[in-house]
Amino acid sequence: MAQYFVGVDLGGTNIKSGVLDADARVLCKLSVATEVDRGNAAVVGNIVHAAEAAIARSGVDRSKVAGIGIGSPGPMSHRQGLVINPGNLPCLKDTPLRDIMVKKTGIRTTLENDANAAAFGEYWAGAGKGVRDLVMYTLGTGVGGGVIVDGRMLRGYFENGAELGHMIVKPGGRRCSCNQEGCVEAYSSAYFLARRAEEMINEGRPSSLKPLVDKGELLMAEHIVEAAKAGDRLAAQVWDEACDYLAVAIVNMQHVTNPQRVVLAGGLIAAGDFLLGPIRRHASELTWNLLDDLPEICFATLGNDAGVIGAAGCAWEADRTGDW
Amino acid sequence: MAQYFVGVDLGGTNIKSGVLDADARVLCKLSVATEVDRGNAAVVGNIVHAAEAAIARSGVDRSKVAGIGIGSPGPMSHRQGLVINPGNLPCLKDTPLRDIMVKKTGIRTTLENDANAAAFGEYWAGAGKGVRDLVMYTLGTGVGGGVIVDGRMLRGYFENGAELGHMIVKPGGRRCSCNQEGCVEAYSSAYFLARRAEEMINEGRPSSLKPLVDKGELLMAEHIVEAAKAGDRLAAQVWDEACDYLAVAIVNMQHVTNPQRVVLAGGLIAAGDFLLGPIRRHASELTWNLLDDLPEICFATLGNDAGVIGAAGCAWEADRTGDW
Repeated sequence: MAQYFVGVDLGGTNIKSGVLDADARVLCKLSVATEVDRGNAAVVGNIVHAAEAAIARSGVDRSKVAGIGIGSPGPMSHRQGLVINPGNLPCLKDTPLRDIMVKKTGIRTTLENDANAAAFGEYWAGAGKGVRDLVMYTLGTGVGGGVIVDGRMLRGYFENGAELGHMIVKPGGRRCSCNQEGCVEAYSSAYFLARRAEEMINEGRPSSLKPLVDKGELLMAEHIVEAAKAGDRLAAQVWDEACDYLAVAIVNMQHVTNPQRVVLAGGLIAAGDFLLGPIRRHASELTWNLLDDLPEICFATLGNDAGVIGAAGCAWEADRTGDW
Repeated sequence: MAQYFVGVDLGGTNIKSGVLDADARVLCKLSVATEVDRGNAAVVGNIVHAAEAAIARSGVDRSKVAGIGIGSPGPMSHRQGLVINPGNLPCLKDTPLRDIMVKKTGIRTTLENDANAAAFGEYWAGAGKGVRDLVMYTLGTGVGGGVIVDGRMLRGYFENGAELGHMIVKPGGRRCSCNQEGCVEAYSSAYFLARRAEEMINEGRPSSLKPLVDKGELLMAEHIVEAAKAGDRLAAQVWDEACDYLAVAIVNMQHVTNPQRVVLAGGLIAAGDFLLGPIRRHASELTWNLLDDLPEICFATLGNDAGVIGAAGCAWEADRTGDW
């Protein structure tokens, strides 16, 4: 009997949802406003509505929906099905979302960290299809991560595994938002690479970006990419170092979970080969020569749908393993 | 029905073996010479003999021996049951040791990387008992590693996972034996911390160890520990940095596999609190303050028996999961 899975991607602005079949085909998807300002009950209601509306729109018989997967921002607990204290969804503090969902819909539900869910999406249906050992980096404002080990999500004892942005790649280096020094996020995230360029310009280093900074405009990663492509030396240095430190992190993952493939996602991958080329080159230069086990490095393919697909994938996995 | 497991720890000088029950109790253990110089057939014969002699000495009915586990130096393949090309056992190059063992003994056999096997030993019966997410560092001539994720051995796609000594903790830093720059092994192994002290002394830095170096004596890690304890500033600096870089590696593992416990083994742990104190202190200083998930850091408890116990544990695990 055909079975279907609902994916819900819980964001600070919108809740995306969709219905997928067991082969990860998307039957339908939709988006509703989160309405954070309206408080806990309203947001929870919107989450339930996003799932129900997707089921209704898909035309799938409700009895054939085998489960719901929800991708939630952290900190959260998969084991307890609990949203703990997400920065952009303060009203969901300490909400037992999994059990609420089961009660309101009558459908088995699993709750997963959104970065983990996105990685599972790429593993199930995207750039990691057919790969059982996978590492994913999401290069956005921060650097997120997800790790699949032998086909299973890596969660860790404290359920904070795969926080790959906070691997220290330069002890004593730049202060990260997490208060550690020298995290890969402090060099390779869109936010920090722009801050780094601003600081260097403010220290008097010449750059074509100086007029923007002097105007008080906040530099964006896109500015750095454009300026670096146009030959700006400061921008090129910041960009190259962002790629270099990410390559250090990837080589370190090579020696820890030893993945077949590393998948890069997030806003920065819009830079295309201008990102992938230097990362691959640095990784090849940094890695050992004892064994030939550097993973492939490539881009994610699911784009903005990774969250919904991955959340549905988590439900598919829970159904397959009986681990709800 | 009670079941028993044979562990074989394959070393360049000796082959250790033992028989354990399913509760990891050691019924007997023994050691035979490897006899590397006598070539492949002789060494393989000695491995078979080590297993058979342990069974005979244990007094256990052969029909109750559920399996044999062999811990082999790498590179090797668990999946293929193949010894590939171990540096200290060149005559075993490309030997399908698992299948040979099955043929010669009639007992199911599993082959595992020796560092992984030792980590599994601590997980099954030592400092990691009761812990499902564990990281082990073996601090000897090199820095070895083993990782247990949710009760399962982490092996990786290329079967080179948990090569924890080759995590880069200082990009552009000291050249490691693997040819990478800045590996934790290049700072925190017994071999490299002694080399580092020698180099600093040869550069003219004052140290109480200078007379030893001038005599052409090879410094040992024990010399560094003694001198550091006695107040030698150079030795204290080298030792503290060894602890500091290992703490960086531990914090990075905190963010990757997120273990409950990190177990330290190998020759350097003879330094006791003089090692553990600075590592714990540095890790506490280095880690983030977003969440309280720094793992416990403690010493291994199985000592030299970890290899045999862990190899038997791998057989116990293979029997339990049916994954031979």
